[in-house]
Amino acid sequence: MAITVVGSVAYDSIETPAGRKERCLGGAATHFALAASFFTDVRVIAVVGEDFGPEQEAVFKARNIDIRGIERAPGKSFFWEGSYLENLNEAKTHATELNVFAAFEPKIPDVYRDSDFLFLANIDPVLQKRVREAMPDVKLVAGDTMNYWIKDHRPALLDMLKGLDVLVINDTEVRMLAGNNNLLQASRIVQKFGPHTLIVKHGEYGATAFFNDKSFAPNGTNAQGEPTPFRAPALPLEEVVDPTGAGDSFAGGFFGYLASQGEMTPAVFRRAMFYGSVMGSFACERFGTERLQQATRKEIDDRFALFRELTHLD
Amino acid sequence: MAITVVGSVAYDSIETPAGRKERCLGGAATHFALAASFFTDVRVIAVVGEDFGPEQEAVFKARNIDIRGIERAPGKSFFWEGSYLENLNEAKTHATELNVFAAFEPKIPDVYRDSDFLFLANIDPVLQKRVREAMPDVKLVAGDTMNYWIKDHRPALLDMLKGLDVLVINDTEVRMLAGNNNLLQASRIVQKFGPHTLIVKHGEYGATAFFNDKSFAPNGTNAQGEPTPFRAPALPLEEVVDPTGAGDSFAGGFFGYLASQGEMTPAVFRRAMFYGSVMGSFACERFGTERLQQATRKEIDDRFALFRELTHLD
Repeated sequence: MAITVVGSVAYDSIETPAGRKERCLGGAATHFALAASFFTDVRVIAVVGEDFGPEQEAVFKARNIDIRGIERAPGKSFFWEGSYLENLNEAKTHATELNVFAAFEPKIPDVYRDSDFLFLANIDPVLQKRVREAMPDVKLVAGDTMNYWIKDHRPALLDMLKGLDVLVINDTEVRMLAGNNNLLQASRIVQKFGPHTLIVKHGEYGATAFFNDKSFAPNGTNAQGEPTPFRAPALPLEEVVDPTGAGDSFAGGFFGYLASQGEMTPAVFRRAMFYGSVMGSFACERFGTERLQQATRKEIDDRFALFRELTHLD
Repeated sequence: MAITVVGSVAYDSIETPAGRKERCLGGAATHFALAASFFTDVRVIAVVGEDFGPEQEAVFKARNIDIRGIERAPGKSFFWEGSYLENLNEAKTHATELNVFAAFEPKIPDVYRDSDFLFLANIDPVLQKRVREAMPDVKLVAGDTMNYWIKDHRPALLDMLKGLDVLVINDTEVRMLAGNNNLLQASRIVQKFGPHTLIVKHGEYGATAFFNDKSFAPNGTNAQGEPTPFRAPALPLEEVVDPTGAGDSFAGGFFGYLASQGEMTPAVFRRAMFYGSVMGSFACERFGTERLQQATRKEIDDRFALFRELTHLD
């Protein structure tokens, strides 16, 4: 089943302990789409400027990603500059230039309308909500957000969350959004805002999914009748070259695998979490999208097997 | 097979977001011994003061822990005061009073000498080394340390590490000890100091074991011939009441299960890691040793099953 993703397609200038790269192709929708493309058909809605040319198009086309929903606008593409010199788990933003994104009005190509899966990558929650409402027939909607929207655009964010089935978010953000430092309690609070399933990303420690009684793929339950969470690991890597896009790649692997399967069972959900971790780990191995562009399905499945070995008792 | 553990038996005054408790029974050897006692015979070497009476003895005796190696000395027992108000993963120390520990000279009772397993809990590495040398015939030696010894007693610590098979250490400490921020690289450096197996504790994210070609229970290997690490989860808890002793309880569960098994296979090692995580998670649920005192083997095995469900694909 096909996924439509809306989000940023951008250029990133990144500095990490491994070096510095100027104007890599990036953006949440880009990382998500590349990761998901190994599993299913992916369609992108975004806006780019005149600096997005055949070379960037080719990155998407090489992975059979439909970019008919990427609008070209006069001006420059979204640009982000950041570094991870002190902490590889948290970017320090040096510059954000919205450029063509400032006036972005998402338009959904008719050919995208039969998508069964919708991913609302991290952009203004007002836009996320608009896309969600324009595609009322999708079977499953997941989304991401970030500290900026949580802090300064809370009403719009809460409004958007009502339309989500699955929220993918990181440790710090879920605590900030809930106003509670306990991960379990924070997750329960955020689930009340809308999403029945919450996936909390822990960076180098993996990710945990929290379910409630509306989740389509809950685990067993504890004595209080609450479903058991599920935790996927991350791989201890020899060198984290660039963590930019690792979270979006996680989301792409997770949602891509889910969309590729006929049914939503707990087993499918668990495998999707593992594939998310696999794609997130690849993303960190090179700057920008380089590693995801080069990955093969065999490498992905080999790493999946490694993740099983890393965590399974037998 | 029996374990001898040397380390502190102490009193802790602890403040956490859940409240404050004065002078709980604590100390690394106490938490370790209680956790390990659910799996095998445990013998403690420590020193206590005149403030250690029948009530404290009873805590050990209720779990059949041999305390003939706990020496009574004039004066007061080791005392620690700390809080976790800002960060539940890291204690802030307000007071450390060595008291009787200042002049501690570990003596090994003859009845302990047939122990096959030795655990050197966190104390002065000079004392750890002395006990290790006094028990040359043990089959497996594991130990712990902390930032204080890493920073200010490095030569003695490096000397002690030569005698360890397994080092149990936390994230921050392994990076500090290795002088390298990458977990995989840091582990490899520390393994060269002596221990063939390294268990790095990640607090609420579990623990990862790193092996080398001398490890008794390595996993499969990657393309470079390096053994795959193994990661045990931690449980997302409703409320972390008091993390004091969680790491020692992890070590006790891990080493206790290992000692209870006839052979060291990868499967036994993996299960031991899970039992470590189980005991660590119980330890956090009440102040001091309260939860470990009340635990039952059935609760422990139920939680083991929950940890499997939390992380396993099928």
